[in-house]
Amino acid sequence: MKYRIDNLQYCNWSRDIFQINREANLDAVHATVVYHEDFDEFIQRTKEWDKFFTENSDLIFLGRSFKDIEKANSEKKTAIFFGFQNCSPIEDNIALVEKVYEYGCRFMQLTYNNQSLLATGCYEKNDSGVTNFGREAIKEMNRVGIVVDMSHSAEKSTFDAIEISDKPIAITHANPSFWYKAIRNKSNDLLKTLSNSGGMLGLSLYPHHLKDGSNCTLENFCTMVAKTVEIMGAKNIGIGSDLCINHPDSVVEWMRNGTWTKSKNYGEGSKNKPGFPKQPDWFLDARGFNNLERGLKKIGFNEDELNGILGNNWYNFYKGIN
Amino acid sequence: MKYRIDNLQYCNWSRDIFQINREANLDAVHATVVYHEDFDEFIQRTKEWDKFFTENSDLIFLGRSFKDIEKANSEKKTAIFFGFQNCSPIEDNIALVEKVYEYGCRFMQLTYNNQSLLATGCYEKNDSGVTNFGREAIKEMNRVGIVVDMSHSAEKSTFDAIEISDKPIAITHANPSFWYKAIRNKSNDLLKTLSNSGGMLGLSLYPHHLKDGSNCTLENFCTMVAKTVEIMGAKNIGIGSDLCINHPDSVVEWMRNGTWTKSKNYGEGSKNKPGFPKQPDWFLDARGFNNLERGLKKIGFNEDELNGILGNNWYNFYKGIN
Repeated sequence: MKYRIDNLQYCNWSRDIFQINREANLDAVHATVVYHEDFDEFIQRTKEWDKFFTENSDLIFLGRSFKDIEKANSEKKTAIFFGFQNCSPIEDNIALVEKVYEYGCRFMQLTYNNQSLLATGCYEKNDSGVTNFGREAIKEMNRVGIVVDMSHSAEKSTFDAIEISDKPIAITHANPSFWYKAIRNKSNDLLKTLSNSGGMLGLSLYPHHLKDGSNCTLENFCTMVAKTVEIMGAKNIGIGSDLCINHPDSVVEWMRNGTWTKSKNYGEGSKNKPGFPKQPDWFLDARGFNNLERGLKKIGFNEDELNGILGNNWYNFYKGIN
Repeated sequence: MKYRIDNLQYCNWSRDIFQINREANLDAVHATVVYHEDFDEFIQRTKEWDKFFTENSDLIFLGRSFKDIEKANSEKKTAIFFGFQNCSPIEDNIALVEKVYEYGCRFMQLTYNNQSLLATGCYEKNDSGVTNFGREAIKEMNRVGIVVDMSHSAEKSTFDAIEISDKPIAITHANPSFWYKAIRNKSNDLLKTLSNSGGMLGLSLYPHHLKDGSNCTLENFCTMVAKTVEIMGAKNIGIGSDLCINHPDSVVEWMRNGTWTKSKNYGEGSKNKPGFPKQPDWFLDARGFNNLERGLKKIGFNEDELNGILGNNWYNFYKGIN
């Protein structure tokens, strides 16, 4: 088997994007459908996706389990798996966990940068870990089959989630902090614990997570992958590109500010660079997977390892979700 | 001036209760209108209150500022001030702070037992303090005139709130933990800091906060008041009875469990005693204010101090809200 999976994209979805993802031979994409939306707003997002699925049925369909990755592969389509960057759609209601699952959700971050009802985000000053409601929610996510995603969470909360969850968790899009000390990147300790528990790290191609940002070289990135494999092994690493293609800058402003602040928050950006950063020229969109393949080969990965990192590891992880 | 104020009740509201409050000469009551409700549900609660105000206009009206306490006193009515036991009505939206103010909200707890988006509740294992959104919300509450209430919050969060808030905050219903170590009762350090910052403590008559619970004696309670005055002075103490009259036990179950857990949470109760506790016989309802007056006199409080504790201190605090 040779699957190609990008386990995090949040593009300004259009037929163009779906075509590009097919050109990149992506069998599956974990697509962010919600940042700050509540339950009703999430349902609206699913209706927009229904339209995408109808109008682009030659390219995409809604993914519900690992079998849809196999189906996509044989039909030369891309299975779209829904995910949330925040837990806002379940509001304060444990019963909504099952509801959002029914509507297709397969990944849910417990937090997006700030404190949520479930855990602490990476941009808070203090991290109290997974909350009372968080423990209940993780149990319920385990039961129905939604992956706990801690990409934007603070460290203690992430350790807690690994411990509390009966199923392996994921960090769908982040990089190791030994390589680049972005607030969101993860410590070696955390990556080891993640890997030992069967959890997955999706390596990010978002410039704010890359050494040298938009100027990061393919070689530098692939060297980082090799070092990360030394820490985590080669089976628990995949790609979660965090591609945010074709969005106006107002979208990143909304991602960061939601409706929680009257002053401006720049998140990973800054007052002088508030917008989306420019992608590295070797990963302008998902077709950059071909460059990754070349780069990883060059650095010395064998076929098995390479296919694992570019998709098979995620495929195996999906097998354990339900 | 001689005002009588009960700065926390959550009764099963009816004409009977409003009459009892008048018999107790209450000029103002801070009434809980929301526990776990979101914004739309809060608006529903205000409609229910509109009906109460219309049908009982000889007894109650909506209080909006300290002037309504004066008005109530002269008209022999009770001004009802709306408050929230949780911040759920503002959801994740800073703009809703001003909206809920417009609909009458004058007190808002940042948390109810569990972690909220703003701060940590007293039943969480760890307390990370006031969050990013919490800082913004406090600033906005200060601006529009909603009091920060930390009755059900954890200690660090409460210290944070006192420090962050430009206006004095309140603990509308709790007792000192030197007297009885309920999870929700407050430490001497916290009470001193509260008092030094101009904040108010509303002493609770809810049996779970009382030494000896339902069997707490009037004398024992009044001795506690005297000791608390030694810590805080006599000007920053009032009454917030936490009276929950005429509710079925399903209501206290809902208060504790909301919709956040599938297992049962007993809060201050226990599996064997899950329901509302019995009130002490000297404070079965607000007419117990007369017993308090007698008890406080007996313990040695002078007229000024006594009137302060039974209402004037809250009246002075209300003067500073807007």
